[in-house]
Amino acid sequence: MLADLPTPYVTVDADVLDRNLRAMAGHAATLGLTLRPHAKTHKCVQIARRQVELGAGGLTVATVREAEIFADAGLTDLFIAYPIWPSAQLTARLRDLASRADLKVGVDSATSAEALARAVPGLQVLVEVDSGHHRSGVAPEAAADLAVAADKTGLLVRGVFTFPGHAYGPGRQQRAADDEATALTTAAAVVRAAGLDAGVRSGGSTPTAALTTAGPLTELRPGVYVFGDAQQAELGSCGWDSVALTVTSTVVSRNGPRIILDAGSKVLGADQQSWATGAGRLLDHLDARIVALSEHHATVIFPDGAPLPKLGDTVQVVPNHVCATVNLADELFVVSAGELTDRWPVAARGANT
Amino acid sequence: MLADLPTPYVTVDADVLDRNLRAMAGHAATLGLTLRPHAKTHKCVQIARRQVELGAGGLTVATVREAEIFADAGLTDLFIAYPIWPSAQLTARLRDLASRADLKVGVDSATSAEALARAVPGLQVLVEVDSGHHRSGVAPEAAADLAVAADKTGLLVRGVFTFPGHAYGPGRQQRAADDEATALTTAAAVVRAAGLDAGVRSGGSTPTAALTTAGPLTELRPGVYVFGDAQQAELGSCGWDSVALTVTSTVVSRNGPRIILDAGSKVLGADQQSWATGAGRLLDHLDARIVALSEHHATVIFPDGAPLPKLGDTVQVVPNHVCATVNLADELFVVSAGELTDRWPVAARGANT
Repeated sequence: MLADLPTPYVTVDADVLDRNLRAMAGHAATLGLTLRPHAKTHKCVQIARRQVELGAGGLTVATVREAEIFADAGLTDLFIAYPIWPSAQLTARLRDLASRADLKVGVDSATSAEALARAVPGLQVLVEVDSGHHRSGVAPEAAADLAVAADKTGLLVRGVFTFPGHAYGPGRQQRAADDEATALTTAAAVVRAAGLDAGVRSGGSTPTAALTTAGPLTELRPGVYVFGDAQQAELGSCGWDSVALTVTSTVVSRNGPRIILDAGSKVLGADQQSWATGAGRLLDHLDARIVALSEHHATVIFPDGAPLPKLGDTVQVVPNHVCATVNLADELFVVSAGELTDRWPVAARGANT
Repeated sequence: MLADLPTPYVTVDADVLDRNLRAMAGHAATLGLTLRPHAKTHKCVQIARRQVELGAGGLTVATVREAEIFADAGLTDLFIAYPIWPSAQLTARLRDLASRADLKVGVDSATSAEALARAVPGLQVLVEVDSGHHRSGVAPEAAADLAVAADKTGLLVRGVFTFPGHAYGPGRQQRAADDEATALTTAAAVVRAAGLDAGVRSGGSTPTAALTTAGPLTELRPGVYVFGDAQQAELGSCGWDSVALTVTSTVVSRNGPRIILDAGSKVLGADQQSWATGAGRLLDHLDARIVALSEHHATVIFPDGAPLPKLGDTVQVVPNHVCATVNLADELFVVSAGELTDRWPVAARGANT
């Protein structure tokens, strides 16, 4: 029973989750795009299976270890959207994965391509393009040179991908979606002009997913949409009624307009963008602000005159960045109509390698 | 062997660790203070035992679950430095702990005191005082009223405590240490004037520990000093040569003066104070800056003309806040003179309840 759980604990509303999964599946289907959701958000086999049931064409993961965990569960169409460096410690694991999964990995340099080809001859790769986030990836115009270099090593080039991470800021979604489309279009054109395959043009993030137009992209890789979080709601990428994951927390201290909750950064995560209103939000008190976060304390200020929760009351905290919250939990408590209906292990928690 | 581990992984230099443990033990002994280190930093039974061997008078923990884990390991002198709300879900566990450990807990309201006394009659408590951090705790002058209220419920008042968390900023250490001493002196005086016990006057944090004077305090509760981290080094509370914990990470991408490491917020933690130079530091490249952190990427910029690590090279990343890093790891790889000598499970990882 939910009432037996000590706080803080992480719950997922199964009904809201299913609505989110169906909405994104429907959106991708309408656009004729392959949905390849990023499993780093939920790290749960149960959710990955449901995504595939609803039409996802495979999963995106961030690490070799995440790929192994989902492959072990029978989810074998996998793209590691990461510029993997095939160190000696990873080579045997990558070979094993490639032998039992339909595996693709990212590549963003000729040096990495050579190393990957030595590690796993004939591995399928997507060339990573920088569409404006300025993290990894080559300039769109440089995608052809890299694709040719990769092809020469014997890697199988399947296309191009990007992550429009610069969408994570107020009012930046349309620009990032446009940048993504332009970058993938340019990259695909130069790769095709070099006589190579640009069949996969993969992009997408939760903030830009709604703005995607078919054509430039063939594939969408959003992650956070399954649960939503305070960042997405504050960016306008989801409504508060689409938030499926919250941390149930107890009021442990009160002083004037200030309450202290037992949910700190060790359960919520410490992510806080400069534009965030605070360190998360209270789902039933959206006018309150989490003004500080310690490891086991959230300091919450209520507006003048607002009724405060009492000592011992529980509240639902919406984390800023749900991927961090999930990665701190051993299991997710699944709720439907207010009742505990299941517990899902976070199978890929801590799967960083 | 260290060379067999895939990155990112967390290592502890056993020699630096031991030097840090001895230095703080010596400092407390010189001042005649009880050292009660905060185990939330390391969450490791092996380190807790070593702290006690070197003279620690017990441990501080943040949660009931942490207390249970250390009590199970035979470390039974425990202070939960937290305003515990004894919910129905915690009552039986608190009673069990009190029956097998020398347990004290924090209290910061008469309402909590009444609830604690109903849950665990005769429980030992310390009254929490706010010395300027403005999180939990009562004003020093109000400590007597709370102590009297707690005493009336049958709780055993053993003294007062505070956390000078406002020391976490450049140039704020001396002021916070002074505030701490003043607050504990005032609180102890009013509690004694009310005829109650103020024998324990507990304070201390890693940034203020060196500034502590005996008299106002009887007990020190630093946590981070065992490992150090980038925050402490940037605050001047430890030298870079006292950093005992680093995350070994691989260069996976390079572009101009920018490299991308495979250590992101899911291994380092996302903590970043406004005054930090970045999202952590590189121990062997202190002039480089971690300008962005994603879940699996650290974006590092090197100064003009500085030689950059190559693709596939490994570097040692010093996290900003080591407590977060430890709580993300399943085990710590122990190194001495460059060789892997042990693996310590993070016994209290995720022990939030």
